[in-house]
Amino acid sequence: MQKILVANRGEIALRVMRSAREMGVKTVAVYSEADRDALHVRYADEAVFIGPAPSNQSYLVAQKIIDACKLTGAEAIHPGYGFLSENASFARQVREAGLILIGPSPEAMEIMGNKLSAKAAALQYNIPMVPGTEEAITDIAEAKQRAIEVGFPILIKAAAGGGGKGMRIVESAEHFEEQMNLAVSEATSAFGDGAVFIERYVSSPKHIEIQVLGDTHGNIVHLFERDCSVQRRHQKVIEEAPSAVLTPELREQMGKCAVDVARSVNYTGAGTVEFIMDDGLNFYFLEMNTRLQVEHPVTELISGIDLVKEQIRIARGEAISFKQEDLEINGHAMELRVYAEDPANDFLPDIGRLQTYITPKGPGVRVDDGFEQGMEIPIYYDPMIAKLITYGKDRREAIERMIRAINEYQITGITTTLSFGAFVMQHEAFTSGNFDTHFVKKYFTPEVLNTESADEAEIAALLMEKLMSVKAVTAPATAEVSSANWVKNRTSY
Amino acid sequence: MQKILVANRGEIALRVMRSAREMGVKTVAVYSEADRDALHVRYADEAVFIGPAPSNQSYLVAQKIIDACKLTGAEAIHPGYGFLSENASFARQVREAGLILIGPSPEAMEIMGNKLSAKAAALQYNIPMVPGTEEAITDIAEAKQRAIEVGFPILIKAAAGGGGKGMRIVESAEHFEEQMNLAVSEATSAFGDGAVFIERYVSSPKHIEIQVLGDTHGNIVHLFERDCSVQRRHQKVIEEAPSAVLTPELREQMGKCAVDVARSVNYTGAGTVEFIMDDGLNFYFLEMNTRLQVEHPVTELISGIDLVKEQIRIARGEAISFKQEDLEINGHAMELRVYAEDPANDFLPDIGRLQTYITPKGPGVRVDDGFEQGMEIPIYYDPMIAKLITYGKDRREAIERMIRAINEYQITGITTTLSFGAFVMQHEAFTSGNFDTHFVKKYFTPEVLNTESADEAEIAALLMEKLMSVKAVTAPATAEVSSANWVKNRTSY
Repeated sequence: MQKILVANRGEIALRVMRSAREMGVKTVAVYSEADRDALHVRYADEAVFIGPAPSNQSYLVAQKIIDACKLTGAEAIHPGYGFLSENASFARQVREAGLILIGPSPEAMEIMGNKLSAKAAALQYNIPMVPGTEEAITDIAEAKQRAIEVGFPILIKAAAGGGGKGMRIVESAEHFEEQMNLAVSEATSAFGDGAVFIERYVSSPKHIEIQVLGDTHGNIVHLFERDCSVQRRHQKVIEEAPSAVLTPELREQMGKCAVDVARSVNYTGAGTVEFIMDDGLNFYFLEMNTRLQVEHPVTELISGIDLVKEQIRIARGEAISFKQEDLEINGHAMELRVYAEDPANDFLPDIGRLQTYITPKGPGVRVDDGFEQGMEIPIYYDPMIAKLITYGKDRREAIERMIRAINEYQITGITTTLSFGAFVMQHEAFTSGNFDTHFVKKYFTPEVLNTESADEAEIAALLMEKLMSVKAVTAPATAEVSSANWVKNRTSY
Repeated sequence: MQKILVANRGEIALRVMRSAREMGVKTVAVYSEADRDALHVRYADEAVFIGPAPSNQSYLVAQKIIDACKLTGAEAIHPGYGFLSENASFARQVREAGLILIGPSPEAMEIMGNKLSAKAAALQYNIPMVPGTEEAITDIAEAKQRAIEVGFPILIKAAAGGGGKGMRIVESAEHFEEQMNLAVSEATSAFGDGAVFIERYVSSPKHIEIQVLGDTHGNIVHLFERDCSVQRRHQKVIEEAPSAVLTPELREQMGKCAVDVARSVNYTGAGTVEFIMDDGLNFYFLEMNTRLQVEHPVTELISGIDLVKEQIRIARGEAISFKQEDLEINGHAMELRVYAEDPANDFLPDIGRLQTYITPKGPGVRVDDGFEQGMEIPIYYDPMIAKLITYGKDRREAIERMIRAINEYQITGITTTLSFGAFVMQHEAFTSGNFDTHFVKKYFTPEVLNTESADEAEIAALLMEKLMSVKAVTAPATAEVSSANWVKNRTSY
């Protein structure tokens, strides 16, 4: 494999190309109208223009990606995450075109891409599932019986549903009939179908996922867990590895389950098995993501394994060069997704130009990004500017470094999730490990953000710009140490 | 310890402040006339101006540093490396002023600062020394007898000497009298003293050093070795940890010796015991550096220990929180010192303005620097721009990442050691581990540098600047994939 095409953009395209370059593999970028000046285009050995900015006219068009391979002689495609990365029909087209997709087989993607077939595959290995009804029911008496068996609190959800409609949480048996009636009538009016599922309601859920790697020789290993419980708008924003709450026994148990899930579809490449965990540390299979995750760097930092290089080696047909027992966790890693979003405005995107953009450095800090000072964040794609990742010998040091790095990060022109990250890192629920996916709902209000210091940082940045341009004038030529000569500097650099 | 003053500048001042900030300790910077706009001044919580640019009027004036502490209420001083960091009389002044020096005692500094007393201290623990005469001799017959005992090749060096004068390498006994006569007469005419020392000449020496930490409770541990054999002008330019040639047994043996050397002076804080090693892997004590080394990050990366934080904790009187047996090596780290020097012109300084300055990112890359794009490298101080440090699961990956990172590093306006670094990383002698301190003399000539690609990078950077300013015009609005629409990009980003 001499040349690969990266069918993605932004930080993940750069990140994939960096590993390819280290392996001596040439890289091809693809880019839309909006990404003409993007860093991933500059970084690649070659770049192919694939159309207008909207992704359904460029990054999502399978044929254009395949044509770009033919044009450049790229033998394989790395899909990154998002876009075509979990699209089984794309995976088939790639195979039919005689190219290699750096990822699992279309068959594995298909099974894991559907909740029912994924569950069926996992059940072959007795993977724990959230207890509940296997099939939709309408009969109230039967439903109540099942609810009692499952155990309260339970969740009633419309079989045909989505978006929370027809969904009810029931705390105890005495309120069941009333809530069930409401759920059925809501479901009937919303979807024309009153059938519902009943399942255990996990009231304080943690999102724990396990990284797996499988090769074409039948070897599957796991690379421990990531805790991705801090979410906003049901999407991850802070991830870490290892989790603050897992015991070694539980880690081994979950790791084994994840390997079994992967084995159920003869999984090849890098994948992630997601679990929900309740406050009694019971875990249940949610789904499998058949691609590299955004948050993969925290696993790289604690395991020492470059996951992209492993993906490429597996796609070349090589066997994984290490065994489960060779792997160990060293230290702790934390990731904050730096989004162009306003935490004070319900995390809505805040697109614009990066007027100031200076990234943090120093021990234990990694920034995976796709932008430079002066660039615009395009409105067409996910508004993630960067992933700020810190590493320390333990969780406390990883958190301390995250706080230090957030303070060093200078972004003006766009509101970001940096201030939210600083809030989380200093919150007792987070530092104690005692947090779940409701963290934002429970603890976050715009008032908790130190917006004053954000303003200060902006003012300081402007001042600095001004100072830099007149530095020769402001510097006294002969002054020595004296109480009049020291300058108080701002703390947020 | 609530507030510390960093009596240094550049990358090391920033690096120290980062760890202090992570620990919640406030920082005070000092700065000379030349450093008014320096990053370490911006980064600190407070900054004190201490005089004109020449360091003997600012950074080297002990009283100004102490006054700056008094002025700001700083309780302790971190001296970094260079400047006052190994000055025992400064250490005494600090103690007398009721302040804490983050480093060893003045007594330990004094003993290790003198070659004879350092040797005497080390000999208490039978640390191996380069075999030779203990005292200066003038008698030829006696000298020859000692030379035969020591074993050829031997080195004759003037007792009063320095700078290579009166120094002779003698390969075998038959040439001894002739060379000894020449050495004595050279020494007599140069120094008015014909006395010489005789010692074993180490013909293929490696420079191996061991990092140690000692606390005020009598605990001393070592944090493995660094190989600093690639030097230019007798100064280190590439360092790595661990060494490519040490066995676990040898590592343990050298580690024990280093701990003993530290124990001989009741060493506290971070220090480094330097050894010379011959091609038979025999090692001999050279000297001890009683401060943090430039190359300390490679040790941090393989051990997971933040050495600056340990220095601060030890200075606070805390016991080291880990034992020798808790420490282990994980992975491999490599450091290239990026100097403002021209490798093609005998590594002479090439001072100027950083017209383009973009640092590499991504997995396994750490850049410790003290500059931003647009800044000048001052002529008054050491011309180091940055330390480029890479980490990988093994030596090969650390080297591959170093090559990738060198390619990503964009510096124009100043010639640097980056191109030299790329040459070394790809040289068989280096990749095989079969290199010594003569690497530059043996293999390096200006012709081996790929100066063409350096020019290309400069042109590309200029072009990019131009492109960025006219991007809206050059972007065709509707073009799709076609052979005419793909752009070949330069490989060195």
